[in-house]
Amino acid sequence: MARSTLYQLVASDLRRTIYSGALAPGDQLPTEAELMHAHQVSRNTVRLALGELVNEGLVTRTPRRGTVVRERRPLLMHPQRELRPQPQEETREAFAWAVSQEGRVPSQEIEVSIVRPAEEIASRLELADDELAVVRRRLRFVDGQPYNTNDSYFPLALVGDSEIARPGDIERGANKVLEELGHRQVRVVDDIWARMPNSAETERLQLQLGTPVIVYLRVGYDEDHTPVRVAVSVLPADKHLIRYELESR
Amino acid sequence: MARSTLYQLVASDLRRTIYSGALAPGDQLPTEAELMHAHQVSRNTVRLALGELVNEGLVTRTPRRGTVVRERRPLLMHPQRELRPQPQEETREAFAWAVSQEGRVPSQEIEVSIVRPAEEIASRLELADDELAVVRRRLRFVDGQPYNTNDSYFPLALVGDSEIARPGDIERGANKVLEELGHRQVRVVDDIWARMPNSAETERLQLQLGTPVIVYLRVGYDEDHTPVRVAVSVLPADKHLIRYELESR
Repeated sequence: MARSTLYQLVASDLRRTIYSGALAPGDQLPTEAELMHAHQVSRNTVRLALGELVNEGLVTRTPRRGTVVRERRPLLMHPQRELRPQPQEETREAFAWAVSQEGRVPSQEIEVSIVRPAEEIASRLELADDELAVVRRRLRFVDGQPYNTNDSYFPLALVGDSEIARPGDIERGANKVLEELGHRQVRVVDDIWARMPNSAETERLQLQLGTPVIVYLRVGYDEDHTPVRVAVSVLPADKHLIRYELESR
Repeated sequence: MARSTLYQLVASDLRRTIYSGALAPGDQLPTEAELMHAHQVSRNTVRLALGELVNEGLVTRTPRRGTVVRERRPLLMHPQRELRPQPQEETREAFAWAVSQEGRVPSQEIEVSIVRPAEEIASRLELADDELAVVRRRLRFVDGQPYNTNDSYFPLALVGDSEIARPGDIERGANKVLEELGHRQVRVVDDIWARMPNSAETERLQLQLGTPVIVYLRVGYDEDHTPVRVAVSVLPADKHLIRYELESR
């Protein structure tokens, strides 16, 4: 039997143990020596198998604690929720809502500035060459840990005189302010992709090596089909799950 | 000025050139020497800047051709399309349709088997402990290159006597067969996340080092709220973009 097949068998066995719940988050896997004995394989084969599980984000390895099943509590994001009428008492932003639902504590840092946005934003906002945008950049925390970023861009011409262009949080949400300005979003287009983070993201989000990010970009259009908002979220892939529910017509 | 800031400035400058279209896919970037001269920085700074762009999937570096803007033609996936009534003449599967739309040639290899599925599939299909599933595993190609995989699971009890459990392609699609069996899918739940590929995926999909995959998992429910299908797609992140369009109610 080729070695590649052998280590994959060991990995597959361990994977089953984790998915079945026999090993829970925080539990230690057997030591390398124990795995060598149990599967009658070499240390190298065991290490290759464990490497697979690390790659898949199922376990972490530390010199002190050995191999441990990773804490998997991805935050469930419901991009559809933002479009539904919210109960009067629920004015919080979708992120804060989702985090609180799970009994965790949300917080954020927000920074507002006026910029000439990158081409991929400017073209989506249909800005003219010299047109500016307001960007509200948020770094969000869960239980005090950096969790994701969300940068929302608005055409300066549209929001320059509103709260959106001023520093600080808007309690009722920027979407509500857009609505008051006569630009209620009636349609959104969500694009989702993934990539490796750049160094600024790795630092800002305190990412572990080898963690990809999901990029989730929403363009909101008003009743005149004018794009009024582009929101870009960068979501560390080990901590987020995006869910859509659709009914057939 | 700290070096980290300096190389980020150079990276940002190159990024702008690519996004603006001044450098198109397949174009070579200036050489390291040219960049050192243009930006008045060290070779090390240039290399750090180029490393950023490689990480972001914007360029590839080869010893022979230097740094080249990456061919970026991600396939646009519309998960909502499958739920809409299809025109009579359009019986092809969503993937084949999307690929043909772009003037590219789709093909696939399909393998049908009966399995005891992994826990994460079995629980979503609400299978009893010893219940089996039919899995239709597809490796899909675009212009002859491996592109993504799609594994669809069905409860054996439901589809055992149908075409779904037999080898080979189903021209009108497995969803149509489910419908004929009295299990039309009226609601789906789509979960989207990302991770690094495992070695089997890297090999099967011929992935470049450092390319994450998007996992897109759809559970389909019939009118009785019974899960009748779980489809798992593994999509190399550099080649796919998932898009949802939503209207506010």
